[in-house]
Amino acid sequence: MTINLIGTGNVAWHLANHLAKIPECTLQQIAGRSPEKREKFKHLAENVVTIDALQPATVTIIAVSDNEIEKVATLVPYQDTLVVHTSGSITIEAISQNRKGVFYPLQSFSKNDTVDFTNIPICIEATTKDDLDILQKLALFLSTKVYHIDSHQRKQAHLAAVFVNNFTNHCYTIAQELCDTHQIPFELLHALVGKTAQKAIDHSPSDVQTGPAKRNDTQVINEHLDMLQQEDHKSIYQTLTASIIAHYGKEL
Amino acid sequence: MTINLIGTGNVAWHLANHLAKIPECTLQQIAGRSPEKREKFKHLAENVVTIDALQPATVTIIAVSDNEIEKVATLVPYQDTLVVHTSGSITIEAISQNRKGVFYPLQSFSKNDTVDFTNIPICIEATTKDDLDILQKLALFLSTKVYHIDSHQRKQAHLAAVFVNNFTNHCYTIAQELCDTHQIPFELLHALVGKTAQKAIDHSPSDVQTGPAKRNDTQVINEHLDMLQQEDHKSIYQTLTASIIAHYGKEL
Repeated sequence: MTINLIGTGNVAWHLANHLAKIPECTLQQIAGRSPEKREKFKHLAENVVTIDALQPATVTIIAVSDNEIEKVATLVPYQDTLVVHTSGSITIEAISQNRKGVFYPLQSFSKNDTVDFTNIPICIEATTKDDLDILQKLALFLSTKVYHIDSHQRKQAHLAAVFVNNFTNHCYTIAQELCDTHQIPFELLHALVGKTAQKAIDHSPSDVQTGPAKRNDTQVINEHLDMLQQEDHKSIYQTLTASIIAHYGKEL
Repeated sequence: MTINLIGTGNVAWHLANHLAKIPECTLQQIAGRSPEKREKFKHLAENVVTIDALQPATVTIIAVSDNEIEKVATLVPYQDTLVVHTSGSITIEAISQNRKGVFYPLQSFSKNDTVDFTNIPICIEATTKDDLDILQKLALFLSTKVYHIDSHQRKQAHLAAVFVNNFTNHCYTIAQELCDTHQIPFELLHALVGKTAQKAIDHSPSDVQTGPAKRNDTQVINEHLDMLQQEDHKSIYQTLTASIIAHYGKEL
């Protein structure tokens, strides 16, 4: 199986590093616009080029930002091999080629982060059984967790991922700011960060909810609102608390 | 060191089970109102009684709900040994005895949950150096992480813990509901739950924020708002997104 990879961002970087190590795959070409960024990928593929110099491969992976995918697909100089993108929120139809697909690793990739693909779920989609088989084979080289989900489900999964990743991380950020303001080491909360995540994995999160909102403890809730200095922190506290009260109130 | 424990709830249960195993401590008496609940604690202490039957111990731990602490302290039938409570949000002054303190394990305790105290931070407070030494000694029997923080800081840490635990868990709950609605297995997001928590521990959470709000990607944000069916989910999405945009906009 030969692979072409288009893109030089975080997702492309982590994919390239892992694809280069798979004995059954040849990372044939990597394409990028910036000569400096191409230089950093040079050791990972047989050649690193601009997009117009790409030669057909079994799978061409477009790993660029969401709003570039459609345009980049039209620049791929061949039509009859499988072309996929790696986005959670963009439909498969953004690919103009006849054989199209999606290869979406559901993880948040940061620069300088070590990534173990083995545990990263990869969501795949294609328009034919043969192409789905190719993507499944490729996904299983990287990860033990492969899911066939369609564009509609993938968008919903991406939205759910915003809650699980972006919003929880912002809650951590606010907690760290509160700690910093009052000379409390944030590491005091590290064990709770880990435990909360582990409980949500081991149980259903709604079964392990605790706290003043769950108990509808208005005295503690009002004290907390008085303690919060920033208006946006107050709004977040109020909105989440109201939602928790509504959620568990229904159960009573 | 002899210990009396008052309370038969989750915190009391986990504390009793761990205190009973410390060779250097004697769990002298456990007090509770309900005969059925006292029965469940019978194997853990020398005797399990009603509060009026307590005899002085080195430390008396009041592990009852926040709004009961002050009243329960007045019912302790002795005045001259150290009495502490285990709450994050209640001041040390809720204890009426001369020698008062706080022994707050910063963790979210659920029924049926196995608890490893070794990694749970214990926040201690007392009014004299001697009593602080006693609590430090006791805390180190249970955990490797002991913090001296005062009542003001402890309240702030408890508020930060609401963000880190209660609010993130509710974000997980919403994500699970979105998955359920669209026939997506929630386990698809398990790896992301774990990774997000681990990154916040390994890095500063504000350094690893990603997503449409961080990028101020209004197209994806508006699509997500259209996809959310429940008003409270929309409000949470909007409030957190606005806060993230404000936070990282400032940095630009």
